[in-house]
Amino acid sequence: MTDLKTRIEEANAKAFDILRQGKPRLIDVAPALDVLPGMKPNLILHSAPAIAWDDMCGPHRNGIIGAAIWEGLAADPEEAEARIRSGEILTTPCHHHDAVGAGAGITSASTPMLVVENAAFGTRAYSCIAEGGGLRLLKWGYWDQDVLDMLTWQARVFAPVLKAALAAAGPIDLKAIVGRAVEMGDECHNRSVAATALFLRDLYGPMAALDMAEDDIRASIRFLVESEHFLLHAIMAGAKSMLMAAEGIEYCTLVTAMARNGVDFGIKVSGLGDRWFTAPAMEVKGLFFRAEWSYEDAAPDLGDSAITETVGLGGFIQPCAPTVTQYVQADLAQAIANTAEMRQICQGDNPDVRIPAMDFAPGPLGIDIRKVVKTGITPLLDTAITHKDGGLIGAGEVRAPMGCFRDALKAFGAAHG
Amino acid sequence: MTDLKTRIEEANAKAFDILRQGKPRLIDVAPALDVLPGMKPNLILHSAPAIAWDDMCGPHRNGIIGAAIWEGLAADPEEAEARIRSGEILTTPCHHHDAVGAGAGITSASTPMLVVENAAFGTRAYSCIAEGGGLRLLKWGYWDQDVLDMLTWQARVFAPVLKAALAAAGPIDLKAIVGRAVEMGDECHNRSVAATALFLRDLYGPMAALDMAEDDIRASIRFLVESEHFLLHAIMAGAKSMLMAAEGIEYCTLVTAMARNGVDFGIKVSGLGDRWFTAPAMEVKGLFFRAEWSYEDAAPDLGDSAITETVGLGGFIQPCAPTVTQYVQADLAQAIANTAEMRQICQGDNPDVRIPAMDFAPGPLGIDIRKVVKTGITPLLDTAITHKDGGLIGAGEVRAPMGCFRDALKAFGAAHG
Repeated sequence: MTDLKTRIEEANAKAFDILRQGKPRLIDVAPALDVLPGMKPNLILHSAPAIAWDDMCGPHRNGIIGAAIWEGLAADPEEAEARIRSGEILTTPCHHHDAVGAGAGITSASTPMLVVENAAFGTRAYSCIAEGGGLRLLKWGYWDQDVLDMLTWQARVFAPVLKAALAAAGPIDLKAIVGRAVEMGDECHNRSVAATALFLRDLYGPMAALDMAEDDIRASIRFLVESEHFLLHAIMAGAKSMLMAAEGIEYCTLVTAMARNGVDFGIKVSGLGDRWFTAPAMEVKGLFFRAEWSYEDAAPDLGDSAITETVGLGGFIQPCAPTVTQYVQADLAQAIANTAEMRQICQGDNPDVRIPAMDFAPGPLGIDIRKVVKTGITPLLDTAITHKDGGLIGAGEVRAPMGCFRDALKAFGAAHG
Repeated sequence: MTDLKTRIEEANAKAFDILRQGKPRLIDVAPALDVLPGMKPNLILHSAPAIAWDDMCGPHRNGIIGAAIWEGLAADPEEAEARIRSGEILTTPCHHHDAVGAGAGITSASTPMLVVENAAFGTRAYSCIAEGGGLRLLKWGYWDQDVLDMLTWQARVFAPVLKAALAAAGPIDLKAIVGRAVEMGDECHNRSVAATALFLRDLYGPMAALDMAEDDIRASIRFLVESEHFLLHAIMAGAKSMLMAAEGIEYCTLVTAMARNGVDFGIKVSGLGDRWFTAPAMEVKGLFFRAEWSYEDAAPDLGDSAITETVGLGGFIQPCAPTVTQYVQADLAQAIANTAEMRQICQGDNPDVRIPAMDFAPGPLGIDIRKVVKTGITPLLDTAITHKDGGLIGAGEVRAPMGCFRDALKAFGAAHG
């Protein structure tokens, strides 16, 4: 009879291979109600893990209220809150509907969703469209009439143009773009400037050639030009589509999701089903974009964007993006040391992600909860800093808390003796 | 009375400041005959320094013949050569007409030229349009009917679309683009992928909105999407426009041009007028793009593109572009050592060009012939490898020969006692 360790090694090797083979491709954009499994008109999604209304952080509560008003589910914040409490409006994590949301991750029935398919395994994952530049966006748990108007423009004008352009361009190979972007200063979490530029370079031709209203096409191109990090949301959905293919492998101790809701940090593990293992979310260290803001204004770590680290991007390959390292006043040597640390908690190396400043060494891939607990090293995430009342106020990095990894390993031990 | 050393220091500081203040902006595209000072219908330009027909390398002779046929100055190669020998067709360096040409630098009266103005000093410089991807291009001294057809398409279709798009977009700030591109994996000589992507991101909107034939706009966008290094030629003209402002400063020992014609390597020096100081061109070390090619097939170092190193880009900031360093099988440590060497022969640091892999240290700027001779270190150039009969066959790096710097310093000494 095979011993437990061998079974784990085999299961992890299998999951790792599935991650390596993943081929995420952006194929479509469509309203959440049309494409998200289990989506309902009165359902509003937020970044995971699951959390009750009264426990939610400010950005989540603000964002959900804004979405409720935008959808016409409530006329004002008071009505929205009453309907949430009465259960007429439901809330649940993006992750429970195969989606991932940056920041507060607010997603409702009419939200246009990027559709990413993992061509190697047929899994599909989704993410809302980035709202463009600026600090005050629904994704950061902020809303006013301007924000709602932008959402309406995205749903009515931009999404149809993007849908038609994607149909004309054919599937966008996100793996190829990420592979090039990490050679061009992106770590593909806090920075996706190169990835976005490469994506747009391929998309503009088909978009400009569309037989649609010229004003709509021009406005769409202008929006894309001003959205430096547009592709991040597609990369996140791509990461989710890769990880979905590696879920539910018995004996597998690799992490298949990391997400934060501004209160808790949660992980899922391939061999442990759908359960979130959580620990209190940490304070993000970094740079505040205005002198008026400080750590006192900040919500704890928030968002599904840690899905990028879960596939070895972002904080796992900081030496790819020294501009991002500047947010935490660190140097390249520190960034290289951080990647070396992440390598200690990963299953293996990813030859599809090469780090130029490390002579093209491959990035680490596949977080193993056993190694996290054994080494005492938790994943390092690049991330934004959100105001506790909503709005983007900075960027930096954060360590995952140890508690959720320890609990997951305990649960694994309990399940397998 | 001020001593010579003080005069040199003051002159060099002045020239350095002029280089630092340069603001090259791409403003227009127009036929060479309309914009190049002294251009004539029967004149064909090539990369500098000046050289007689019988002494020219293969790529120059092929390219000039191709251009003569394209311009209708000759019906076939034999007639072209006869007319060159008889003086009916004239040849002269691009540099003598405020232009710079990559590779063979072939430029004739109908060639569409990128017009770059140094907004700080009013100097204007020019470069032909990159011909897109592929190895067999006129700029590499190769021509056939396909090449000539592409030139015709560029002149008749693409240039008018680009001209209109530039007019709509307004001046393109090349300094800002270069400043960002060096943070995104470009050293802006052998690699300008990020610079081109950033440029195109800004240009597509105005281009797509033009009131011109849709097929022409679409074909132009397609051409740009396939031209990964399109912006190099504009960056070269920008460098020339910066250096022109620093020419003719008495007592100045800084280099204002470096160029190679496949036979000679030439430099100009600010305080020494228009004279080229030359030494035999060197063999480029690097990677050949096909197994069939080797050093025996290669022409010696060729092209005006060393104008990028003359303003501190390319080989002077190799750590910005580890992908380029791969051509010579070197690692990041070697690239960093190379930049440290270049710093020894330069007047100062350029805060507008920051090297991410060196914790954003500024690049070196302003080659001083005194320091070159004193240290025995000559400029290191990133560059292409051209086949001796025309065509691109590889890429790598080359050292400038010492002789031209030694001769220039001797001439300087003779002029100033």
